[in-house]
Amino acid sequence: MSPASPPEPSLLSLNTATVRMQWNMDEIIEGCARHGIRGISPWRDQVAKAGLIATAQRIREHGLVVTGYCRGGMFPALDATGRRAARDDNRRAVDEALALGARCLVLVVGGLPKDGAGRPASKDLAGARAMVRDGVAELLEYARPAGMPLAIEPLHPMYAADRACINTLGQANDVCDEVAPEDDGALGVVIDVYHVWWDPHLAREIARAGAHKRLLAHHICDWLVPTEDVLNDRGMMGDGVIDVPGIRAMVEEAGFRGFTEVEIFSANNWWKRDPDEVLATCKVRHRECS
Amino acid sequence: MSPASPPEPSLLSLNTATVRMQWNMDEIIEGCARHGIRGISPWRDQVAKAGLIATAQRIREHGLVVTGYCRGGMFPALDATGRRAARDDNRRAVDEALALGARCLVLVVGGLPKDGAGRPASKDLAGARAMVRDGVAELLEYARPAGMPLAIEPLHPMYAADRACINTLGQANDVCDEVAPEDDGALGVVIDVYHVWWDPHLAREIARAGAHKRLLAHHICDWLVPTEDVLNDRGMMGDGVIDVPGIRAMVEEAGFRGFTEVEIFSANNWWKRDPDEVLATCKVRHRECS
Repeated sequence: MSPASPPEPSLLSLNTATVRMQWNMDEIIEGCARHGIRGISPWRDQVAKAGLIATAQRIREHGLVVTGYCRGGMFPALDATGRRAARDDNRRAVDEALALGARCLVLVVGGLPKDGAGRPASKDLAGARAMVRDGVAELLEYARPAGMPLAIEPLHPMYAADRACINTLGQANDVCDEVAPEDDGALGVVIDVYHVWWDPHLAREIARAGAHKRLLAHHICDWLVPTEDVLNDRGMMGDGVIDVPGIRAMVEEAGFRGFTEVEIFSANNWWKRDPDEVLATCKVRHRECS
Repeated sequence: MSPASPPEPSLLSLNTATVRMQWNMDEIIEGCARHGIRGISPWRDQVAKAGLIATAQRIREHGLVVTGYCRGGMFPALDATGRRAARDDNRRAVDEALALGARCLVLVVGGLPKDGAGRPASKDLAGARAMVRDGVAELLEYARPAGMPLAIEPLHPMYAADRACINTLGQANDVCDEVAPEDDGALGVVIDVYHVWWDPHLAREIARAGAHKRLLAHHICDWLVPTEDVLNDRGMMGDGVIDVPGIRAMVEEAGFRGFTEVEIFSANNWWKRDPDEVLATCKVRHRECS
């Protein structure tokens, strides 16, 4: 599939993880403004460091659109106390997303329940998935009346144990069907090309998400060959093997008209570069390779 | 799901990659015999080094069962010349598997077509998958009359670009449906827990494979958290997060009665240990953790 038209430069957004090693929150906001990047998607730890209210104000001053807030989730826990702690923390994340005026709260749903030292303490993947479904349903009761859409991000299967046990868009759609059959946009999905590009049912599941008004966010980067690190070796669009324009065509065909967000974790390359160069490259590659 | 009974020690097989850094082919065969491991699954490069005929003879002398031969596949190529080279090489792999008396030839189907330097030279994943389907169909015309079953091994999605674009058991079953609807056992699948443990449809697809007489091999190891290397950081059963007994229950429930093969690539741990210790550990962990 090819996109109907080139990417719209005014709909580029920067996920703040992309330059997190070089810049603090204020510098990232100013960087976006300086480079004419109109969307931003901040991470909680970076916002906490800069202050929530101050960050919200800076973002407003510069007229940036908060295309998503990263992140809530991590629902599975060994016991009720752990699940309650996750619930409370997720409610705070909703509150923060509201304060920032975010378009959605991104949910990285969590993997297997962990012990006190953060190690997986169960092999019951089906059980973890049930906890995720229940956790999303419960958080939705809080987020829907508050007006904050929740966006489930299916993560690549290589993160099933430790980060997210929702590993395909089909699974995310199933959870939406089950806990939010209303199709009112209160619960949806993130399409991050890094996580879903390999999926043989990708086109079908993107169309399904679109038909139910669930396309809340679209993240781009690239898959490098070889990949040197499971977590922090993502590539810039055009440097890897993902057909990024092909996936854009799918989400646009399915009705998505929102921002496209660049999110790159790259310990040995982009996190080591001059952040102004990174932002300039994001703009060029968004235009030419997405 | 829990297995109906403990694993049968006489149905343990050693994939020769597990001690490939320490021992040559002859030493591995002797090691299996010494440790009472009755199955072996050799790799082509190790066999080539030791000599095909000599290896076949040694294996027969020791009465080992060749539970699989690793590996054919790598079907996609940029042009007809490349695909013909793959076809010819795969026919040789079938011939070798026959000479060894292997129960199946394992197919790692290949990812995106590569250029002369071995780098991905296309982003057309659907096209690669079509080449795989065609390549399997063509090889089957050679292997079926020769009596060598072909076993498609779905690989983890993190290998989609460079090793195998068949990334779920569902996809492998679809290919079998399409090119071998006869269900005569000439084409089937490998269930390697490392590649498929995360799949939400695993139980359903194993049952489907079993119902069509396609369960040709079962590989075990474990998924470590964290995983330090995308390729060579597999764990010994019991050291990671995979519910290995649960998956054994699924394959047995689906009718599989063959050997269970330990296949561990482990640059920083098992490949550095005394190979006799590795084999002894495989036996214990097969009994206690699978």
